[in-house]
Amino acid sequence: MSFKEGDWVLLVYEDKRYLRKLDRNFSLNVGKQVVKFEDIEGRRAGEEVKGFYLLEPTLEDIILLGFKRKTQIVYPKDSFYVAFKLGLSKEKKLLEFGVGSGASTAVFSQLAGEVWVYEVREDFYHLAMKNWERFNLCGNVKISLQDFSEAQVEENFFDCAFVDVKEPERFVEKVWKALKPGGVLASILPTTNQVVSMLRATQELFCAHEVVETLHRSYKTNPERLRPQDLMIGHTGYLFFARKRI
Amino acid sequence: MSFKEGDWVLLVYEDKRYLRKLDRNFSLNVGKQVVKFEDIEGRRAGEEVKGFYLLEPTLEDIILLGFKRKTQIVYPKDSFYVAFKLGLSKEKKLLEFGVGSGASTAVFSQLAGEVWVYEVREDFYHLAMKNWERFNLCGNVKISLQDFSEAQVEENFFDCAFVDVKEPERFVEKVWKALKPGGVLASILPTTNQVVSMLRATQELFCAHEVVETLHRSYKTNPERLRPQDLMIGHTGYLFFARKRI
Amino acid sequence: MSFKEGDWVLLVYEDKRYLRKLDRNFSLNVGKQVVKFEDIEGRRAGEEVKGFYLLEPTLEDIILLGFKRKTQIVYPKDSFYVAFKLGLSKEKKLLEFGVGSGASTAVFSQLAGEVWVYEVREDFYHLAMKNWERFNLCGNVKISLQDFSEAQVEENFFDCAFVDVKEPERFVEKVWKALKPGGVLASILPTTNQVVSMLRATQELFCAHEVVETLHRSYKTNPERLRPQDLMIGHTGYLFFARKRI
Amino acid sequence: MSFKEGDWVLLVYEDKRYLRKLDRNFSLNVGKQVVKFEDIEGRRAGEEVKGFYLLEPTLEDIILLGFKRKTQIVYPKDSFYVAFKLGLSKEKKLLEFGVGSGASTAVFSQLAGEVWVYEVREDFYHLAMKNWERFNLCGNVKISLQDFSEAQVEENFFDCAFVDVKEPERFVEKVWKALKPGGVLASILPTTNQVVSMLRATQELFCAHEVVETLHRSYKTNPERLRPQDLMIGHTGYLFFARKRI
Repeated sequence: MSFKEGDWVLLVYEDKRYLRKLDRNFSLNVGKQVVKFEDIEGRRAGEEVKGFYLLEPTLEDIILLGFKRKTQIVYPKDSFYVAFKLGLSKEKKLLEFGVGSGASTAVFSQLAGEVWVYEVREDFYHLAMKNWERFNLCGNVKISLQDFSEAQVEENFFDCAFVDVKEPERFVEKVWKALKPGGVLASILPTTNQVVSMLRATQELFCAHEVVETLHRSYKTNPERLRPQDLMIGHTGYLFFARKRI
Repeated sequence: MSFKEGDWVLLVYEDKRYLRKLDRNFSLNVGKQVVKFEDIEGRRAGEEVKGFYLLEPTLEDIILLGFKRKTQIVYPKDSFYVAFKLGLSKEKKLLEFGVGSGASTAVFSQLAGEVWVYEVREDFYHLAMKNWERFNLCGNVKISLQDFSEAQVEENFFDCAFVDVKEPERFVEKVWKALKPGGVLASILPTTNQVVSMLRATQELFCAHEVVETLHRSYKTNPERLRPQDLMIGHTGYLFFARKRI
Repeated sequence: MSFKEGDWVLLVYEDKRYLRKLDRNFSLNVGKQVVKFEDIEGRRAGEEVKGFYLLEPTLEDIILLGFKRKTQIVYPKDSFYVAFKLGLSKEKKLLEFGVGSGASTAVFSQLAGEVWVYEVREDFYHLAMKNWERFNLCGNVKISLQDFSEAQVEENFFDCAFVDVKEPERFVEKVWKALKPGGVLASILPTTNQVVSMLRATQELFCAHEVVETLHRSYKTNPERLRPQDLMIGHTGYLFFARKRI
Repeated sequence: MSFKEGDWVLLVYEDKRYLRKLDRNFSLNVGKQVVKFEDIEGRRAGEEVKGFYLLEPTLEDIILLGFKRKTQIVYPKDSFYVAFKLGLSKEKKLLEFGVGSGASTAVFSQLAGEVWVYEVREDFYHLAMKNWERFNLCGNVKISLQDFSEAQVEENFFDCAFVDVKEPERFVEKVWKALKPGGVLASILPTTNQVVSMLRATQELFCAHEVVETLHRSYKTNPERLRPQDLMIGHTGYLFFARKRI
C-alpha cells in the first residue's frame, strides 16, 4: 500500500501525532520541518520523510485526532472496554443514545452486527454522521434524529444498550423493555451523583451491577529514562453495567 | 432463550459470580442456598432462582471464571484495549505468540479476520485449545506447536502482532519481517526492566512507540454508600505498542 | 543503642515484617527459622540474625503492626498527609473526634502542640489510650470520654480540627464555633455520599474546600524485575479539607 | 489575628489561589475584581472581600505558591509522606542533599530536631536560603555549599538521610557511614532506571527496602456534581526507602 491523493495519513514526529487527508495542497509545518504532498505521494506506510513517520491511522487515531467534537467524547480507553463488556459480536444488536460526536458508535460498530442510534439534537446527529462519512465508518449503524423516549422500539429486541445522556435514569424503564432478558445495559456517568441515581433507578429492573473506572497511565518512551508522563487524564467517567432482570 | 442441558450459565449471587455448565447433576451451594439442575432448566436469562440471577456469560465472564490457567492470564482490562490498539478488523491478520491459556487470543479473534498463534510449550498449546473448545471460541485461529523463532512465516504478511513471552526482545527482528510496513507490534511486559529492553530492541526497526498501564478501579454498588472496593489489582503488565518502520 | 528487655523491635525477614516486644520468653518462628530472646539481646539496630534484620520501629511500623484495632484505622498514607494539611506545628492546638484506635492522633501529636480528643464510645476510648501507652506516644494529648456534641468547648479556640465519625455533617456548626477564623477543618469520609453531605453542610460556614484521594502503589524491590505489587489498597477514604469563614 | 503590612496572605477566589505579601501597593486583579491593600488591612482570616477569601497560608500553600524554583520541587504529597517515613522527631538529626529550591527541607525541618543540608550548586544554595528567609522557615537547618562527597561528616551521626540528586547511587557508601545503625535512607527518583540502580547499589549495605509511588487525585467540590478533576499529576518520582545494615 502506498499513499495517494484522498488517503488519510498519520504523521508521527517525535512524540507528536497529526492526522491529515492527503490532497495536492497538503503541507504540514512542525518546528522547522515542512512536509508536502510531493514528499508523501507514493511512499509506503512505515517510511520516514524529514523526520515524519508515515502511517495508516488506527481507529484510536481517527477518534482522538480526526473526529470533530462539540462536547467531550467517550475516550477510546473507555469505549474499547465497554465494547467487550457489552458482549458485542456479529450476531448482536446494540441500542445506543445519545450519539454525541459518534466516537463510541464508531468503536461499537466494529464488533456489533447492528447498531441503532437515537439522537435528539440535530447538531450532534449531523456531526456524528459527518465524522463517520469522512472516515468511512459505521456502515452497520442506523441513526434516528429522535428523542429515545419517543422512539418506537420493539420489546425484547436488543442484546445490549449503551446510554450516554445527562439523566440516564429517566430512560431506564424504556431501555429495560427494549432489551432481551439478561441483556447488558452500559452507561458512562461523569459524576458520583449520577452513579448513585442510576444505581437507584436500576435496582429493581436490573441485576449484576458493576461500576468501574479506567485509568490509563502513559510512559515516556526513552529507555534510559523510563518514567510516566507528568500529567495524566484524571477522570473521564464512571462506567456502569447491569443486566436485565425478568 | 431458555437454559437447557449443555448450556453455560452465569449465576450471580449478591456480589459473587459462578460460571457453570448445566448437566443433570448440576448443583451449586452458596451459603445456605442450593440451586440444582431442575431449578434452572427451562428458565430464561434474567430470571432469579433462590437469590441467584441466571445469565448468559459474556466473554469476560468466560475468561475470568471459565478458562483454566497455568500462569497469569492476560486480563480482559488489558486485552480489550490491546484488541483495538492493534487495529483489528475482519480484513486483518494477527500474529500471536505465546498463547498461554488462550485468553488474549479469545479476545482478539472476535475482531480479527485470522489469528495465527505459535506456542512452544505443549502444555499451553493443549490448555488453550481446550479452553477454546469448551466455550466454542476461536474458529478463525490457527495454532502451531512451535517456537516462533523456528516458524516459517511469509514476509510482510501480518497486519499486526501480539507478543507475550518472557524475552520478547529476542524475537523483534523476526516479527519485524513478518509484519506489513506500518504494522502494529504490541506486547505485555510485567517488569520495567523488560520495557527498557524492548524499547531498546525496537528503537531502530519500529516507530511511534507507546507504553501504557491500564488501572481499573471497581466500586461497591450500594447507592447509599458508593465507594471503591477496598482492594484493587495494582499491576498486571505494561502495554507496549510500536509500528514497523521500513 | 542495643536491644534489651522491654524494647520494641521490628524484625524484617525477606518481605515480611514483625513488631514484637522483647521479653525473656520472646520467640519468633518464620518458616524454618526461629529467633529467640538470646539471639537479639545486646544486638544493635541494623544487625542480621538468622535472616532477620533487627530495627527500631518507625511510627508507621507501630501503627500498622503494633496498634490493636476494632475498626479500620486511618492509614498512615492518609494521616501523614492530613497532619501537614492541618498546618500543625508546636504552637497549634488540634481538636479531634472520634479517636477510633488512636492511629491518627498518634501521627498528629508529633507535629501539634496540643491535641484535644473526644470519643463517645468507651471501648475506643480505652483502646486508643492503651495503644498510646504501649508505645509511649501522645504525651501532648488530652482525651475525653464524651460525645463532642455535648462537650463544652471555648469558641475560637482551636487552630484546626480532624473529624472521623460516621455523620460529620451533624457536627459542622459546633466545629465551626470551636475553630479560630480561617482554621482548617479536615475529615476522612469513606463514601461519596458522605462527601456530598459534607460539602453541602459546610458550604456556607467554610471556604477553600478540597477533596482528595491518596493512592499509594508499592513496588517489588528486586532490581532485575522492578514492578508494582500485584494488589494495592484501592480505597481508604476521601480526604476533605475546608477553612472557617467568618 | 488581623492582616497588616508585611503579612503573607492567601487569597482564594473560586477555585484559584494566590499567595501575596501585603504591602501598601498591593493589588490583585482577577477577572473583573480588583482587591487592594486597603481592602485587606485589618481584616481577619476567614473574611471575604469582593469574592476573595483571606486566609493565613499553610506550609503547602507556601511551597506550592510562594517558593521560587529552578527545577521541579519535591511535591508536598511526597515530602509530607517522606517526613514521617524518615521517623523524624525533635530528637532526630536528618542529613539531606541536594537542597534544590528548599521545599523538602522546609517540610522535614518541622518534624526534625536538626537538618544538615549539603548543596553543591551555588544558585540552588542561595535560592533555598532565600525561600526559607522569605517565609521565616528552617531555623533548625544548617546548610553548606559543598558537594556531599567532599563533606566531612562524622560516622554514625545521623538518624536518617534524604537524597535528591541525579545519581544517588554514587553517594550510597558515604551516606551509609554517616547514618546510625538502622538509620533510614530515603530518596526520590524520577525514573525506573534510577530505582533499579539504587536498589542494586544499596543491596548489601541496606535492608528493608521499599519503593512506593504516591498518586493524589483531586475532586471538584460541587456537591451536586462530585467528580475528580479532569487532569491529575501522573508522576513526580518513585520514593525509595531502606535502612542501614551493620
